[in-house]
Amino acid sequence: SPSKLPDVKTTIFTEMSLLAQQENAVNLSQGFPDYQADENLLKYLGDFAKEGYNQYAPLFGIKELREEISRKFSSQYQVDYHPDSEINITAGATQGIFTVISAFVEKDDEIIIFEPAYDCYEPAIILNGGIVKNVKMLYPDYKINWNEVKNLVSEKTKMIVINNPNNPSGKILKQNDIDELIKIVKDTNIIILSDEVYENITFDSKSHLTLAKYSELKERTFVVGSFGKLLHITGWKIGYILAPSELMNEFRKVHQYNVFCVNTPAQYSIAKYLQNIQNFSEISTFFEEKRNYLRSALSETPFELLDCEGTYFLSANFGSISDMQDKDFCYWLTKEYKVATIPFSAFYKDKTDEKVIRFCFAKKQETLDKAIEQLIKLK
Amino acid sequence: SPSKLPDVKTTIFTEMSLLAQQENAVNLSQGFPDYQADENLLKYLGDFAKEGYNQYAPLFGIKELREEISRKFSSQYQVDYHPDSEINITAGATQGIFTVISAFVEKDDEIIIFEPAYDCYEPAIILNGGIVKNVKMLYPDYKINWNEVKNLVSEKTKMIVINNPNNPSGKILKQNDIDELIKIVKDTNIIILSDEVYENITFDSKSHLTLAKYSELKERTFVVGSFGKLLHITGWKIGYILAPSELMNEFRKVHQYNVFCVNTPAQYSIAKYLQNIQNFSEISTFFEEKRNYLRSALSETPFELLDCEGTYFLSANFGSISDMQDKDFCYWLTKEYKVATIPFSAFYKDKTDEKVIRFCFAKKQETLDKAIEQLIKLK
Ligand SMILES: CSCCC(=O)C(=O)O
Ligand SMILES: CSCCC(=O)C(=O)O
Repeated sequence: SPSKLPDVKTTIFTEMSLLAQQENAVNLSQGFPDYQADENLLKYLGDFAKEGYNQYAPLFGIKELREEISRKFSSQYQVDYHPDSEINITAGATQGIFTVISAFVEKDDEIIIFEPAYDCYEPAIILNGGIVKNVKMLYPDYKINWNEVKNLVSEKTKMIVINNPNNPSGKILKQNDIDELIKIVKDTNIIILSDEVYENITFDSKSHLTLAKYSELKERTFVVGSFGKLLHITGWKIGYILAPSELMNEFRKVHQYNVFCVNTPAQYSIAKYLQNIQNFSEISTFFEEKRNYLRSALSETPFELLDCEGTYFLSANFGSISDMQDKDFCYWLTKEYKVATIPFSAFYKDKTDEKVIRFCFAKKQETLDKAIEQLIKLK
Repeated sequence: SPSKLPDVKTTIFTEMSLLAQQENAVNLSQGFPDYQADENLLKYLGDFAKEGYNQYAPLFGIKELREEISRKFSSQYQVDYHPDSEINITAGATQGIFTVISAFVEKDDEIIIFEPAYDCYEPAIILNGGIVKNVKMLYPDYKINWNEVKNLVSEKTKMIVINNPNNPSGKILKQNDIDELIKIVKDTNIIILSDEVYENITFDSKSHLTLAKYSELKERTFVVGSFGKLLHITGWKIGYILAPSELMNEFRKVHQYNVFCVNTPAQYSIAKYLQNIQNFSEISTFFEEKRNYLRSALSETPFELLDCEGTYFLSANFGSISDMQDKDFCYWLTKEYKVATIPFSAFYKDKTDEKVIRFCFAKKQETLDKAIEQLIKLK
């Protein structure tokens, strides 16, 4: 029988990480840190395992971790989520996103997403029979044209997917974006899926505006978070979902038959670790230094750098270097200059090619230096 | 908008485990060990985390673990699965099952399942628009009537779900079952989902017949396995899927957008641990002793015990004790005798009630003794 996802290939992140390996290139493609996480956190993992925290967690996630998340949202944004009825731990943010989409999207439902779009939304929508309505955020500003969104909304619109801070563009939503979004969804039944995995990584004193902060949005919104991004442990695969209890109930019906529950010792370790963190603003400073370092080095090259307000990623136009397709350019750069990156066309349904590639700067100094050493040879 | 899963409630396992907690009862309901796993395995988890194995694993799972699984199937069953193209690590067996069903089941496809059925198959099928065709295995033998299966098969049959050894009945498939299954599926495109998470837990020298051993089945079968069950770490949530590469390709399209990948330090720890295990037959002996212990104690009670050829579970008819509905009886037993169990009606779409409940014996001696002390008071 024919494939349910005929157009899906292996993700660009896997493709480029494998190429980086083959070519012995510096890997600035897939978004993950290559430095060590806090040794206390790592120690806890072994401790909890030894102490016997190795059996099924509750399907909501362990209470201790849900309470820490509630505390974090309350202290950071003065927003309340009830640990029992409004918070659920997931096997990474991706599993949360897939499960939200599976729980709500039905045949012929329309879902609005913004491109460039992280690559996991569309396949999940299609798998559930939904129709993707894409709004392009245009180079080089990647601003959202809210009139276009308004015109796309209809009776059939089931969901709007927001990704803020945005991967790959590094842009964050401003107050006026939020205002426009509120105008569009009020008096509708539209559900919002708000992928905020980079919420704690914003720069230049710009702050993250979580959709949870706005009551007209919170009542209809799934907020998605990631401890992988927050604590530099992308391989632990622990994330979370926040939503009002009515939406959460539907989420849990699917979650319990998708993964049932999530790695127990990792949940306990993260909960214990979070108990000692009073605020999360140091993380932005940590990444801002890395962004600045890469940015100032790349400004010596022919790359034309884009704004980066948040996330792990700095992007650049390579048009003055080559007129190759962006993916061909990434292959070429990996093979000839030994630096792997991600082409923006991978984030567009129609493979829009603005000659932009994405560099991940969540790397140790030495890795960034190695990449820079290569990239400054570009003419 | 209406629920995609209007009939789904919180799983019976969560319900009864919570009740056990509230009632301060011995929990023989949900299937998980309450004793410690091997301390070497637990130590590895902390070691790998400290050594820096904390970022995304490959979407197939780490090579070392896929190779150990390949070795296990080759030494145990003389069956070959290629580590790269035919094996994938999952976030527990449940996530593997959900992903297989999501990757293949489409609207109006018919899927045959056998009741009593583990509870995660049906919601995943319904979520994808499939139609469940259930064949009842009848009390007290729970044998499969293959004629009934043959009569259910049609052009619309997309998949048959096998669970062997069977949870909750504890029965295992015999050679003649396999022969009948082969006759039914040959010359069809039917996919088989073979949930074999208890493959290493069979008793009385009966051996597990993996469907992978039969070429007419292997070519169309997803075999599902669980390290939680094999290594007494249900909370690590690491399982695997085996399938021929063509089927595996479709699985991976969905897997990569469901969870993308699975906990990294846990994968490394399990891979290292498996390197030192030459054969897995000790596990059956370990659980057979527990089954025997519980069985001989319960034979002093009015419970009428069913055969238990494998799994964690011994089941019993309580008809001579009470004519309550089985779920009411489980509540009563938890409240009055402080022993929590699972009612078989939870495993039937139509809540068939044969007055049978399931005891989990994957518990330490002390726990079994506590339960027995209570249960022998029953008249
Ligand atoms: C899940 S692999 C992709 C990691 C990531 O978030 C990215 O590179 O954009
Ligand atoms: C995922 S909770 C259920 C555990 C189990 O396999 C059972 O009790 O049958």
